[in-house]
Amino acid sequence: MKNVKIGLIGFGTIGAGVVRILTKNADVIQQRLGAILKIGKIADLDITTDRGVHVERGVLTTNADDVLDDPDIEIVIELIGGYEPARSFLLKALQNGKHVVTANKALLAKHGDEIFSAADDKGLGIGFEAAVGGAIPIIRSIREAFSANRFSAIEGIVNGTANYILSKMSDENCDFQTALQEAQEKGYAEADPTFDIEGIDSAHKIAILTRLAYGAPISLDEITVQGITNITPEDIECAREFGYRIKLLAISKFDGSSIDVRVHPAMIPVDHPMANVNGVLNAIRVCDDMMGENILVGHGAGALPTGAAVIGDVIEIVRNSLIGTGTRVPAQSFQKANVKPIPLKNRDEIEAEYFLRFRVKDMPGVLAKISGILGNHSISIESMIQRGRDDNGKGVPLVMMVHRSNEKNVQDALAEIDRLDVVCEKSNLIRVEN
Amino acid sequence: MKNVKIGLIGFGTIGAGVVRILTKNADVIQQRLGAILKIGKIADLDITTDRGVHVERGVLTTNADDVLDDPDIEIVIELIGGYEPARSFLLKALQNGKHVVTANKALLAKHGDEIFSAADDKGLGIGFEAAVGGAIPIIRSIREAFSANRFSAIEGIVNGTANYILSKMSDENCDFQTALQEAQEKGYAEADPTFDIEGIDSAHKIAILTRLAYGAPISLDEITVQGITNITPEDIECAREFGYRIKLLAISKFDGSSIDVRVHPAMIPVDHPMANVNGVLNAIRVCDDMMGENILVGHGAGALPTGAAVIGDVIEIVRNSLIGTGTRVPAQSFQKANVKPIPLKNRDEIEAEYFLRFRVKDMPGVLAKISGILGNHSISIESMIQRGRDDNGKGVPLVMMVHRSNEKNVQDALAEIDRLDVVCEKSNLIRVEN
Repeated sequence: MKNVKIGLIGFGTIGAGVVRILTKNADVIQQRLGAILKIGKIADLDITTDRGVHVERGVLTTNADDVLDDPDIEIVIELIGGYEPARSFLLKALQNGKHVVTANKALLAKHGDEIFSAADDKGLGIGFEAAVGGAIPIIRSIREAFSANRFSAIEGIVNGTANYILSKMSDENCDFQTALQEAQEKGYAEADPTFDIEGIDSAHKIAILTRLAYGAPISLDEITVQGITNITPEDIECAREFGYRIKLLAISKFDGSSIDVRVHPAMIPVDHPMANVNGVLNAIRVCDDMMGENILVGHGAGALPTGAAVIGDVIEIVRNSLIGTGTRVPAQSFQKANVKPIPLKNRDEIEAEYFLRFRVKDMPGVLAKISGILGNHSISIESMIQRGRDDNGKGVPLVMMVHRSNEKNVQDALAEIDRLDVVCEKSNLIRVEN
Repeated sequence: MKNVKIGLIGFGTIGAGVVRILTKNADVIQQRLGAILKIGKIADLDITTDRGVHVERGVLTTNADDVLDDPDIEIVIELIGGYEPARSFLLKALQNGKHVVTANKALLAKHGDEIFSAADDKGLGIGFEAAVGGAIPIIRSIREAFSANRFSAIEGIVNGTANYILSKMSDENCDFQTALQEAQEKGYAEADPTFDIEGIDSAHKIAILTRLAYGAPISLDEITVQGITNITPEDIECAREFGYRIKLLAISKFDGSSIDVRVHPAMIPVDHPMANVNGVLNAIRVCDDMMGENILVGHGAGALPTGAAVIGDVIEIVRNSLIGTGTRVPAQSFQKANVKPIPLKNRDEIEAEYFLRFRVKDMPGVLAKISGILGNHSISIESMIQRGRDDNGKGVPLVMMVHRSNEKNVQDALAEIDRLDVVCEKSNLIRVEN
């Protein structure tokens, strides 16, 4: 039976997960693949810390070139994250004729053109299932299972940290900081959680999915991104009363002529299949012209789910290389010549339903002023909650759902409302996705 | 650009869907595949009815051999369903060196050994994504994305007709017959709905998934099958009060030494991600040692979802054949030599939580008798609802949830209880899956 040698760059949590799975599940992998996967070399700056997995003598090195230049290694797995030196390592691996597997969403979102082109040009495989949705087989589904379909929307909960925080706020009625702190204590959020809570990590992932679904490269600065830091327990409570849950969604829509790509908190109905996707789980919904919708739910992070997705890619590449080919499926889902930018939707044309939250003085005439301004901007109110007395001089909350409206009109109306002297703090808007 | 000729046997609803998709989405398919898919021949006994799709002159034939013996046709799609002549057609196609794609779950569940072996032996591709879960990419995910994992359970809502009926009964509080009749009027249930409502279709599908997940062939008579015909509006109402929904589940569990495969109505908690999978939607949950759980939700039937799954398989096969190979991935997920039966779990060892429904005389001492018998069989009651007065002499409902118990004990207790003269009708049991 053939032995296939794999090189690993980055021996952190996921790297150790990869080694653990290759050891523990060697038998089933071999029974399915008909070949044996062997770790040839592992490069990491730290080769002394015990990762709790067995590694043969001579496998560890601090020099990535020992992996990249090893002629016996057919596949290089990059798990160091970040832009550099990850980018240089991947490009050198491809240059040296090696297939690559990566979980690096930031890199693929920013340097996708360069890296995917290099793989396509050399006829080599590039696996990145683990870069979006961890264990969820979304990349493979778009690149293969849904190949006959014309996509109209991809949207999902693709950041487990943010979902954990929102779920916790919802279940325990606690505020953002408390939930974040607990996420950090449990290891679900990093010491610097900026990428997760500000929606940047979700933007990386939706950029990758946009490229695959529509064959459309998109740069990160073209994505509207809003995080979850200003979501309050009050928002969550009102959402519940209106029959919704608040989730951080990454959304990419294509109407046939332009794309609309954004990341922001959104309200989804409680009976929506993604409404019960809580904690660190991820979910991705794919809409197309033939299948209607498919929703995939699974663990978006963690050493074993992500590690298993990485090995799934390795197995796919080995199945190809065993029959002497590099790439059966184009890296970007579309043939390289058919990957081209699609215009961005004019932001002034975007329409949705909105949840609006105001904090206003507790006095007569306030509602008339606010609803008057909304009316002047063609925004019609669907339902409203006003409650409580102003006991501490900070105003009372006034929340409403408005019918489908033009977002520019809503933003203009909010700006005008925030200039009223009866309004106590900056108003907030949450989009509704049905 | 290469033209690939496809033959189609069976020009019913799904066949027409396949032709419609190939026409309407020819551009995206070509942009992804780098080849052009052409329908070479279509065989059906009826070649005169208008299917609402354009077919070129000379393509239609009433003789399947015109498809099977056409040297230009590389891939044969079988969509006639049933055992014969579908089996003979598929075997002849493989014999003639053609790759095959089928949506025929009954055939693969019953004659899987023969058909998968024929494909493996000839080194030809066999696609059957459409046979289970329609548009849901479950076959591909098990065969490829999850290749590094050791599965412990696959369970799902895999019959859209039954799910439509149960959803309707739940939403509108109507009885089984009313819901079935509406399903038939809307075209979601066939004139003879036996396979769907008695769980037989679900058994076919879970047999296929069991084979792929564990490499274990299983014959249909080894599967415990119970349909939904005895589910009452009362059961659904009580489930709701206990915080559950009733779904027809197909379940396949593997504890490392034996498998437990069954189809029956089950109660799942309302906050379970599959609890909101309603109407004709399907959902499949996969549990393994590395990824934890993955849940896939989508349309399980319909001309376009199923047709698109069929074409997804065709595209996979063409991607292989363009690089000169038939099978990268073994048909049964495991290499043929590693596919072997796993012992069935002894039914006497099965444990679960149960929902029990009795109809009893409205008189003192009844509850003591029933709970006494349950206690004698080591069954402990978790919660109970008894309600109403016996106005018409037919007894009153008594329902209870019992803690985890041995199923044989529960069945024995029910048999004993049903012999009591205070019990008005045969008692019912619904398993709880958490």
